[in-house]
Amino acid sequence: MPLPEKSLIAALRRKASRTAWQTKRLITGIGDDCAVLQIPRGHQALVTTDFSLEGVHFRREWDSPEEIGWRCLARGLSDIAAMGGEPVAIFLSLALPAKLPQRWVNGFVRGLLDLASEFRVPLAGGDTAQSPADILADIVVLGSAPKGRAILRSGARPGDGIYVTGALGGSAAAIAALRGNPKVKLRSGDFARHFRPEPRLNAGRFLREHRIASAMIDLSDGLSTDLAHICEESGVGAQVESQAIPRAVAGRPPRAVDLTLALHGGEDYELLFTAPLVKRVPAQIAGLTVTRIGQVTRAKPLVLTDDHGRSTKLTPLGWEHFRP
Amino acid sequence: MPLPEKSLIAALRRKASRTAWQTKRLITGIGDDCAVLQIPRGHQALVTTDFSLEGVHFRREWDSPEEIGWRCLARGLSDIAAMGGEPVAIFLSLALPAKLPQRWVNGFVRGLLDLASEFRVPLAGGDTAQSPADILADIVVLGSAPKGRAILRSGARPGDGIYVTGALGGSAAAIAALRGNPKVKLRSGDFARHFRPEPRLNAGRFLREHRIASAMIDLSDGLSTDLAHICEESGVGAQVESQAIPRAVAGRPPRAVDLTLALHGGEDYELLFTAPLVKRVPAQIAGLTVTRIGQVTRAKPLVLTDDHGRSTKLTPLGWEHFRP
Repeated sequence: MPLPEKSLIAALRRKASRTAWQTKRLITGIGDDCAVLQIPRGHQALVTTDFSLEGVHFRREWDSPEEIGWRCLARGLSDIAAMGGEPVAIFLSLALPAKLPQRWVNGFVRGLLDLASEFRVPLAGGDTAQSPADILADIVVLGSAPKGRAILRSGARPGDGIYVTGALGGSAAAIAALRGNPKVKLRSGDFARHFRPEPRLNAGRFLREHRIASAMIDLSDGLSTDLAHICEESGVGAQVESQAIPRAVAGRPPRAVDLTLALHGGEDYELLFTAPLVKRVPAQIAGLTVTRIGQVTRAKPLVLTDDHGRSTKLTPLGWEHFRP
Repeated sequence: MPLPEKSLIAALRRKASRTAWQTKRLITGIGDDCAVLQIPRGHQALVTTDFSLEGVHFRREWDSPEEIGWRCLARGLSDIAAMGGEPVAIFLSLALPAKLPQRWVNGFVRGLLDLASEFRVPLAGGDTAQSPADILADIVVLGSAPKGRAILRSGARPGDGIYVTGALGGSAAAIAALRGNPKVKLRSGDFARHFRPEPRLNAGRFLREHRIASAMIDLSDGLSTDLAHICEESGVGAQVESQAIPRAVAGRPPRAVDLTLALHGGEDYELLFTAPLVKRVPAQIAGLTVTRIGQVTRAKPLVLTDDHGRSTKLTPLGWEHFRP
């Protein structure tokens, strides 16, 4: 686990060690062959890795380095949230073009550590390298959950209700606005879900602690695609009420997004979960609205029902980020 | 932790699930938001991440995809060995250019899983993405070691002996031969330490179990650089006897490498460790020769002593892979 760019190591190490919360679980951090970490007693380890690639997941001209760093980590923390887990430590592998201004790197690291500090997760290591052209980050998050209690994608059963936290399509609304006019300078505050998404760690933990969710996933690829993942892993189908889907309000002036963005837009990082009907699902969890949008079915195809009761097949479109 | 390239996920999943050994520690593997893993009771988690970048760490024209895949994982397992740890699971993040033949990808995965199966470590997840130009792999290895027993870089004390496993410079000899004649086709068997390095997991475990090593690192950047890492982390210096350094025998006809390659050549993935003089260090560990090459000193500079007893400063040159 070398971090060969000496100035970057030194900077990361200084920043990482300035955080008082890092000592409890992080036994040995940056500077050895491996990081050494204490998993809480009775817990199992959770591991997730996520690429953030320039031109695929972000564009330097559309996002500030702080926002790119924040979002890069949000993807990983959101995967921990989707298991109902606790984050333990993060690892950053970063390939950078030689000509990239140090200012950009500093901003990226600042954004990433801003989010890390919010959840008191230490940066425990990683790797750096020179990239021939584009910026490439790979974020690894180590987390934990009590033995046998991580919420998997495979636990949904016919009859379970289907729920989402928050509102959907807000991140895709920013991409749509940028695609419509690439020169436009969006205000972060008008599209917060795109620029600084909050991973739903507290809601995920609540759902695990209260044994409410039978299956869970985070909404990174879009509702239609991520619901299909749950259905595939659980061997079930789903019926979703289109008018029940909570649509994000974004932009200036603020307006509710189209159904298409709420159904297929990615990177909202809300939680999608199923729960048996006997469970009481609170209307709010950790300050977030929770909405029932449908139910798990025995029949395999995913079905969307409109407000006239008409049903059509719901096809997972798969979120393609910036690809046309 | 999405693996979005469907055919690659399916292939990896099939291959990963065909391995009978994966069930004990790997509770949930590829196909959920996170992998779920059982760390052995009383152990702490070890995590290491390592980039393998085309043009920096490998070249498609010099190495077969199987060898590149093998070496990519060897880097990570070697970091676990350097802590005296046990590997638990591996994660592969892979960015591939669109035009890369599927045959190359299959070969890469085969080489990586060949090494994984040798140490019975399951592939538990990762990420895939399309890369604009070059192949880029980031390997993450999760391991474990008994609480407080991982061997760090920081434990060397003045008076400790300095030891290496195996022989040094064998990998650099292959690079030197390729640099001398880029068109040459080297035989893997003539330069085994370059093409299929064995991570020294058994030797590392032995040194931890018998509480022999006071500090340890794996030789990825070259003896001069990696010894400097131990000295820096331990706040000590070192004196190395040049004639004591075991030089690899490589090439056709086989011959011992130059002192320069043994001192500064990287990627041998042997272990460099220190041990108090009161410890009995076996001449062989896990089938590997162990050689004493010097001693830890109080004075900070690294010193090289030749066979006439003359001492010069030993400057860490830092292994630059294929960079000129």
